[in-house]
Amino acid sequence: MTSPLRLGIAGLGTVGTGLVRIVQSHGDLLAQRAGRPIEIVAVSARSRTRNRGVDISDYDWEDDPVALARRTDIDVVVELMGGENGPAKALTEAAMAAGKHVVTANKAMLAIHGQELAEAAEAHGVALRFEAAVAGGIPVIKTLTEGLAGNRITRVKGVMNGTCNYILTRMEDAALPYETVFEEANQLGYLEADPTLDVGGIDAAHKLTLISAIAFGVRPDFDAIALEGIERISIEDIRAAADLGLRIKLLGVAQMTGRGLEQSMTPCLVPAESPLGQLKGGTNMVVIEGDSIEQVILRGPGAGEGPTASAVMGDVMDIARGFRLSVFGQPASTLEAPISAKAMGSKPWYMRMGLLDKPGALAKVAEALGSAGVSINRMRQYGHQDTRAPVLIITHKTTRDAIDHAIALALKTGVVIGEPVVMAIEED
Amino acid sequence: MTSPLRLGIAGLGTVGTGLVRIVQSHGDLLAQRAGRPIEIVAVSARSRTRNRGVDISDYDWEDDPVALARRTDIDVVVELMGGENGPAKALTEAAMAAGKHVVTANKAMLAIHGQELAEAAEAHGVALRFEAAVAGGIPVIKTLTEGLAGNRITRVKGVMNGTCNYILTRMEDAALPYETVFEEANQLGYLEADPTLDVGGIDAAHKLTLISAIAFGVRPDFDAIALEGIERISIEDIRAAADLGLRIKLLGVAQMTGRGLEQSMTPCLVPAESPLGQLKGGTNMVVIEGDSIEQVILRGPGAGEGPTASAVMGDVMDIARGFRLSVFGQPASTLEAPISAKAMGSKPWYMRMGLLDKPGALAKVAEALGSAGVSINRMRQYGHQDTRAPVLIITHKTTRDAIDHAIALALKTGVVIGEPVVMAIEED
Repeated sequence: MTSPLRLGIAGLGTVGTGLVRIVQSHGDLLAQRAGRPIEIVAVSARSRTRNRGVDISDYDWEDDPVALARRTDIDVVVELMGGENGPAKALTEAAMAAGKHVVTANKAMLAIHGQELAEAAEAHGVALRFEAAVAGGIPVIKTLTEGLAGNRITRVKGVMNGTCNYILTRMEDAALPYETVFEEANQLGYLEADPTLDVGGIDAAHKLTLISAIAFGVRPDFDAIALEGIERISIEDIRAAADLGLRIKLLGVAQMTGRGLEQSMTPCLVPAESPLGQLKGGTNMVVIEGDSIEQVILRGPGAGEGPTASAVMGDVMDIARGFRLSVFGQPASTLEAPISAKAMGSKPWYMRMGLLDKPGALAKVAEALGSAGVSINRMRQYGHQDTRAPVLIITHKTTRDAIDHAIALALKTGVVIGEPVVMAIEED
Repeated sequence: MTSPLRLGIAGLGTVGTGLVRIVQSHGDLLAQRAGRPIEIVAVSARSRTRNRGVDISDYDWEDDPVALARRTDIDVVVELMGGENGPAKALTEAAMAAGKHVVTANKAMLAIHGQELAEAAEAHGVALRFEAAVAGGIPVIKTLTEGLAGNRITRVKGVMNGTCNYILTRMEDAALPYETVFEEANQLGYLEADPTLDVGGIDAAHKLTLISAIAFGVRPDFDAIALEGIERISIEDIRAAADLGLRIKLLGVAQMTGRGLEQSMTPCLVPAESPLGQLKGGTNMVVIEGDSIEQVILRGPGAGEGPTASAVMGDVMDIARGFRLSVFGQPASTLEAPISAKAMGSKPWYMRMGLLDKPGALAKVAEALGSAGVSINRMRQYGHQDTRAPVLIITHKTTRDAIDHAIALALKTGVVIGEPVVMAIEED
């Protein structure tokens, strides 16, 4: 048996603890599979004394993660501290400069600094792996870069934030308003310290940024994603969707078009009977379409100690086995600067808006939509609430541009209260 | 850019043609991803002149596949001829002996001769890869051996034969008897030349053999699989399942127990609303459970030119990138001789049997079941057909042993006509 692969772990929260547990409990299995032992040499975290339920007394302790990264007795630094800048980035850069491979679960850091870090990894001849950063335990990065490497990927879509999916599912199942379920999720510890990362779609958009880079050979470009969270989804929207045989999901979509790369992370309506529509609770799902594969769907836990540690461990095993791959599946220098495109496809849209409870208000909105060339398929006015009359509209297929134009015209009529909720209906 | 990876392809049926198409159309993309060009040097097939819709005139032609395997100007032999013995095996052995890597889609060959071929691959220091042999385009081998390499796998189950799933789905949707749908599938070209390979479950059991070896670190042992095909499933069974909120699937299950490895490929009833129950037509699905990952589900096309060629190409890309992995994910010498175990778990069962239309027949069967300790949850007697009264029984949870005993006792009563249809209800 060859020399052990020696790990230094920075960050001993849920995922770090899970990784320690796997290495400690599965030593023989891992060695047999990797052809060499996997050993933890040193760790670094905020608190040395916190009880994590695993014994870390055999490992060297480093107060400073950068010092961990520079140790001469480790081969791989596992970065599980999080945060797009600060210590995580300093650690990653120091580790690569010192010739160490890095495995990270840090989607924010890679979505923002991915190109720079990929170039550094290649310059130093080390691996930078991040399976755990995208869709928790689901091996979506490996599937895209390796299993489907013979395909030109045509589209990737998916549910990539379990907390949002939990909230939307729970609103439907328990007929509860957004605010109540949000508070429940908070009590259950499902939300990030800054909940906007979850419900604002930012966390999911970080993941989509990495998927896009790999799937389409472009530089990671978080700012190019059309982003909208789930904060404005109401129980009325959930019910209206159900009436139509649809369900609301925070859906990421990335596809290459003749005009450039379309990327969006927005609430959408999908058929309730489709695999995406059937996805309940905190589970994630990624649907990959390629020119040879047709369609492959991956589904699994998007977070949690075991699943995320499993993804980290998969990357560690690849490194132990000597697999070497460019960070985004092809050399960083060959990644193209993405040309962002607005969605040009024609699809049906869902709108909910509050109208002033005045005669002719509905007619004015209908006229505004007509002027923008948006044709109405179904319209329903609900029972009045105070002086506000909620209206639901399903359009015939049209473009995002036409919808934006229609909304602008509707707002000009003066009969619309507040900002309308607008969602694409993703049928296929 | 480093030296090209040179392929020799043996077999130019659907999959081989698909592979040629990918290499020809995606040259730049493949080279960028692999870091080196992928080239086809030579091909061998039954007919040199058949029109396949791709131009093979640039490639050397070999009448004898073994001669192809021995050429000094190729690095990888792609075996797409099929058949567990004969030319495919001779070619594979010759290629490995000549120091070539082999990529194959041949599940029968590996399910029967896997251990011997894995040992040969390791002795010659070459790769033997077979992603395309299991579940078509779905990267299930890669997911198990690499992405989930940090897990102790606890169970794998799935639908692994698209033709059987097509037949069962079509019987339900069109309310057609087995024989009619079988004939349709035959007309559509969905069936193997020997249809028993499909409807007898043999093809799917070959795949399960390979999955078991990888998931549980045992030698491939096709004979250990409890095997039953779908030939005896009737429209009555389909309807009865639907009435219970269940669907019939030819389901492969492999799990390690305290007594050994349980492996079965049999028709089972699964909840209609579950991911497996929702699977329609020719699609495949593999559900993987591990101690860290909890559950990951992979779904995609189980056959076809594009998807299967995509899987072959994924293996070729791994070889081009220099990835080297033991054939079954760990050295062949460390694979354990599997101890086969009969399913010991307790679950509900479905039975359909024809009874003589005589007073007391039903009571005799009920008594037989009771004597075997099998308790009946529901029983339904259908309208008589001639002198035969079909009876459906759903039992409370019990073991396979108890069910076998109950059936034996029921047959002894002399009131049962023919062989009962017995299926497990797999609820979780």
